[in-house]
Amino acid sequence: MKIPVFEDIVKAHMLIYPYIHYTPVMTSQSINRIIGTEIFFKCENLQKTGAFKFRGACNAILSLTENEAVKGVGTHSSGNHAAALAHAASLRGITAHIVMPSNAPEIKKKAVSGYGGEITFCEPTLEARESTLQRIEKEKGITVIHPYNNPKVIAGQGTSALELMNAIEGLDLVMCPIGGGGLLSGTALSVKALNNSCKVIAAEPEGADDANRSFYAGYIIPSVNPKTIADGLLTSLGELNFAIIKENVDDIVTVSEQSIVDAMRLVWERMKIIIEPSSAVPLAALLQNKVDCKKFRRIGIILSGGNVELSKLPF
Amino acid sequence: MKIPVFEDIVKAHMLIYPYIHYTPVMTSQSINRIIGTEIFFKCENLQKTGAFKFRGACNAILSLTENEAVKGVGTHSSGNHAAALAHAASLRGITAHIVMPSNAPEIKKKAVSGYGGEITFCEPTLEARESTLQRIEKEKGITVIHPYNNPKVIAGQGTSALELMNAIEGLDLVMCPIGGGGLLSGTALSVKALNNSCKVIAAEPEGADDANRSFYAGYIIPSVNPKTIADGLLTSLGELNFAIIKENVDDIVTVSEQSIVDAMRLVWERMKIIIEPSSAVPLAALLQNKVDCKKFRRIGIILSGGNVELSKLPF
Repeated sequence: MKIPVFEDIVKAHMLIYPYIHYTPVMTSQSINRIIGTEIFFKCENLQKTGAFKFRGACNAILSLTENEAVKGVGTHSSGNHAAALAHAASLRGITAHIVMPSNAPEIKKKAVSGYGGEITFCEPTLEARESTLQRIEKEKGITVIHPYNNPKVIAGQGTSALELMNAIEGLDLVMCPIGGGGLLSGTALSVKALNNSCKVIAAEPEGADDANRSFYAGYIIPSVNPKTIADGLLTSLGELNFAIIKENVDDIVTVSEQSIVDAMRLVWERMKIIIEPSSAVPLAALLQNKVDCKKFRRIGIILSGGNVELSKLPF
Repeated sequence: MKIPVFEDIVKAHMLIYPYIHYTPVMTSQSINRIIGTEIFFKCENLQKTGAFKFRGACNAILSLTENEAVKGVGTHSSGNHAAALAHAASLRGITAHIVMPSNAPEIKKKAVSGYGGEITFCEPTLEARESTLQRIEKEKGITVIHPYNNPKVIAGQGTSALELMNAIEGLDLVMCPIGGGGLLSGTALSVKALNNSCKVIAAEPEGADDANRSFYAGYIIPSVNPKTIADGLLTSLGELNFAIIKENVDDIVTVSEQSIVDAMRLVWERMKIIIEPSSAVPLAALLQNKVDCKKFRRIGIILSGGNVELSKLPF
């Protein structure tokens, strides 16, 4: 697989533009006062399917040839990527095969089927998920679309930072959370291409700190038994993603579980928008002084998604 | 007091424009599918201080002469109007005296003092609140700003519908909740002035249905022992408000408590924005078929506010 470059992000944006929300950038005077600098929140929680994942899924699906597309697509994610892929597939009128563990939460099953995805259940192990997807791939000739280790997905995710950099002048730092690295790698490509002096710092939960450790080790250290409320950030880094991150990211910092909940609550209360725990991780890093805010005047933060189970809130 | 007209709303908008948020209008394809028509949500939950009340408070305070202003302003509301008045006063550099019952929730005290309001506590009775405010009025010569029965407040609240009508073409129905009638009276003036064939329908909880009963009786029936989760809609109608409502509003419908919670949850889950129960009442009316949606192609709904206690959610 070829490592994507900024031009791929520009092309992705031209391709997916009619299908995605050009999400708003919001600010909060009271959060600015608390942090002591200006923050610009790019609201991917308001993106279709409730997360930035729709950008990458759209780009991957719209980039397929007609012959590829008719056979359908598939993934074994059960989270935001699955819902995004199902919805993007429905827009092209093709089938998205989603392999899910039989014990996946009802709300996730409902989201995927609500978007028209075709669910295949399997045992709740990674092996079962992978082998079930491979079986469908062989039987139906579908294109498997990895949630992050895929050039088209990375290019799609990079369109959020592209919009942010175009909308807000003079950002000197852009932050986003890191799980598998799809959002971060796309974001870093956009930011550095548009303003090489703007820093890119990712934030990650202490209980799932494989990206931080990988970044400093220089090679991918897998995520083993991660434990965090930020359920979108549990996975290991992808190879394509890590190659881009090593070249283009300035730092990866870690934050406590309490600071994630505090940051999430702060956004809910002050900005009146719903973000999921993973989205709160960069702001948590600022609350915890893991980034020296005095060095930055204008910080962009990508709020990655807003899919939460309202009956299971941490407040 | 003179009944305000549409021109007063246009003037109010010119006056308060630099201080308020020009709030976004949001849509949701999935809510449109559920209701079966197009809905445009005017997001006053994203207004400063988290509610439309900031518009009226700003207009009232900015309309004061210098001599009046220096003596300060006051109210005995403990909810969104109090926070709005405190913040608007701080922008003009004057004092807002807020009379609150001693048993007011901590979060409301914090909101008012956070915006720089000066709180005077009193016994938790309407008599004590009124007499305490009168005492401060006499001692300090403050201008008392009623939360809704005030021409400047009504004109300010009408600027939300003014923005909505200007932003979205061809609305054939505009809805908002009704408590004291400040938002509804301002909304009706704007809507009817800009498109006389556009209907205006308000929605109200069954457990606080004094506006519905007043509307059909033709005179103000006070709100006695109202009981609803929509805590912004407990008060009785104001005289100025009712005079405008009688002339300009097409209907006032009532909704069940369960439908309010359902509508609130729908907006949180599908739109990823936080609204308070009062804001959900018009959508609840659509969910309950209290309004014949088939008659309307494009419905505007004013989401009045987003101030909720996150630890006391009805989900």
